[in-house]
Amino acid sequence: MPKPVRPITIEEIRDARDRIAGTILRTPLVPLDLGPDGPDVRLKLENLQPTNSYKIRGAANAVARLGDDELARGVWTISAGNAGQAVAYAARAAGIPCSVVAVETAPQTKLDRMRALGATVVPVSYEEAWKAAEAHAFEGMDGTFIHPFDNDDFIAGHGTMGLEILEDAPDVRTVIAGIGGGGLITGVASPIKALRPDVQVLGSEPETAAPFALSLSEGAPRKYPDWQASFVDGAGGQSVIQRMWDRMTPVVDGSIVVSLEQVRTAMRLQAEKARIVAEGAGCLALAAALSGQAGEGPIVCIVSGGNIDLKKFAELVTAP
Amino acid sequence: MPKPVRPITIEEIRDARDRIAGTILRTPLVPLDLGPDGPDVRLKLENLQPTNSYKIRGAANAVARLGDDELARGVWTISAGNAGQAVAYAARAAGIPCSVVAVETAPQTKLDRMRALGATVVPVSYEEAWKAAEAHAFEGMDGTFIHPFDNDDFIAGHGTMGLEILEDAPDVRTVIAGIGGGGLITGVASPIKALRPDVQVLGSEPETAAPFALSLSEGAPRKYPDWQASFVDGAGGQSVIQRMWDRMTPVVDGSIVVSLEQVRTAMRLQAEKARIVAEGAGCLALAAALSGQAGEGPIVCIVSGGNIDLKKFAELVTAP
Repeated sequence: MPKPVRPITIEEIRDARDRIAGTILRTPLVPLDLGPDGPDVRLKLENLQPTNSYKIRGAANAVARLGDDELARGVWTISAGNAGQAVAYAARAAGIPCSVVAVETAPQTKLDRMRALGATVVPVSYEEAWKAAEAHAFEGMDGTFIHPFDNDDFIAGHGTMGLEILEDAPDVRTVIAGIGGGGLITGVASPIKALRPDVQVLGSEPETAAPFALSLSEGAPRKYPDWQASFVDGAGGQSVIQRMWDRMTPVVDGSIVVSLEQVRTAMRLQAEKARIVAEGAGCLALAAALSGQAGEGPIVCIVSGGNIDLKKFAELVTAP
Repeated sequence: MPKPVRPITIEEIRDARDRIAGTILRTPLVPLDLGPDGPDVRLKLENLQPTNSYKIRGAANAVARLGDDELARGVWTISAGNAGQAVAYAARAAGIPCSVVAVETAPQTKLDRMRALGATVVPVSYEEAWKAAEAHAFEGMDGTFIHPFDNDDFIAGHGTMGLEILEDAPDVRTVIAGIGGGGLITGVASPIKALRPDVQVLGSEPETAAPFALSLSEGAPRKYPDWQASFVDGAGGQSVIQRMWDRMTPVVDGSIVVSLEQVRTAMRLQAEKARIVAEGAGCLALAAALSGQAGEGPIVCIVSGGNIDLKKFAELVTAP
């Protein structure tokens, strides 16, 4: 059974920072030139990380925290694509086996890379993966389970992003992160709310999968009634898990819902002006910043990852 | 008349660093995962700079060094695309007018951005631009001329990259940069050869435009007989200008010639594994690193810029 939910402390985030410094990239915060009428936006480029997503921060910290007995059993996780790569990467570095219960409709690039990193991939439907995440269990899996978001060490690892943002943008007024399971935004928000409670932390969700915004409006965790799969495959859950609701609500100020077309526009802008390849989930924050609902800034947008098939990326950024 | 050629000192590069710190991005050095059999390659991501190329380093330094009289006259430069954007950006920040004698076949994205930055664009043929660069003059231009490569302050600005590389990769054995006019490699090589003469500095040129490799083999600056335009529009000159020969040869160890297909492969690898959009010239260094002619590394490859039309980029990285 998972431990009771508790706040992630600034001390454990600082410890995580030291622990993962040799594994992760201290990513740059890059101003996005949106012209004199646009908001002041800066992109936190987590797509440049090893395995091309922020998940390596949490995975590296979680694996480094395992005891010898836990390590000896190997690790397994559940993933829509990015957590699996990150845990596989950290497991390979530690010399231990890794299995991933992976959403079978994840982009081929994500599944291929888990295997290239030595992981055993167990393909399942989106619903099965989500149920396993809720239950912290999946039949037939051996070894030490590393939950991809409902895990204190994973979240503390993500918290290191918050420390870096406050160092690089002391004038920041708003930080926006996409919401999937809720681990990213809980991690980023925890040190920010501890050190700078005046900074607003907002989520961003696609209109096809926006259970946190719905849950906030109804005051309790909800299932999203019209959930649809889309190219924003790295974020957007079917529901808000009660434990993640308990983690997010104390530190998150709201969630902006954006259309897939707004996400696509953000993807093209990031390609044109910042010259990066970002996956759909990695464009949610900019889409929210451009919606006008996040204020004038300075706004820090977390570009959570870059794992998208190049053909799909090319199609999305060049379509009229 | 231009001043006589002289070495660029470590002091003026350190001064340039302080001068441009508020304008440029201290770009990250990102490991490229090429698998256990590939060389140890790290990418210096200059495509993330304002105006999306390293040229902002030189332009910001050169404009900051102008006296009041020179500033009052406004500035002009010559450009295949990236220098023009960078000088226009620095001029706009200084509140002075800027004109650019620009190669008319430059990608539309580069020409549009010069205009968006407030520059007056004077389109000319590639030959006319190259002649103007050699002559340090173009009829009808007013104001203070900022040469895009044969200029001590421009080169000192680029030298700041060399300082950053030595800080971020003290174990570096080889640094590779594309060669166009020769300003980038002279700048990067100057502090490296001053501080770490054991580090090898190599150029990279496309086989369609490789005058420096030819000149090295013949021992004197040469015109490239079979010059052809290509998607590597930001590098590859028609000839080596005598003054740039005198600047480059004391600090550069050689030049690797790569095919356009090798450049395209490097572009796709950088998109797939580093999740960046790089222009042709920005892929020359990795193409050279992958040729096997640059040793095992650690090799630092300078990704000089990212200014490529997205449709062209999409076509190049998705073609079989």
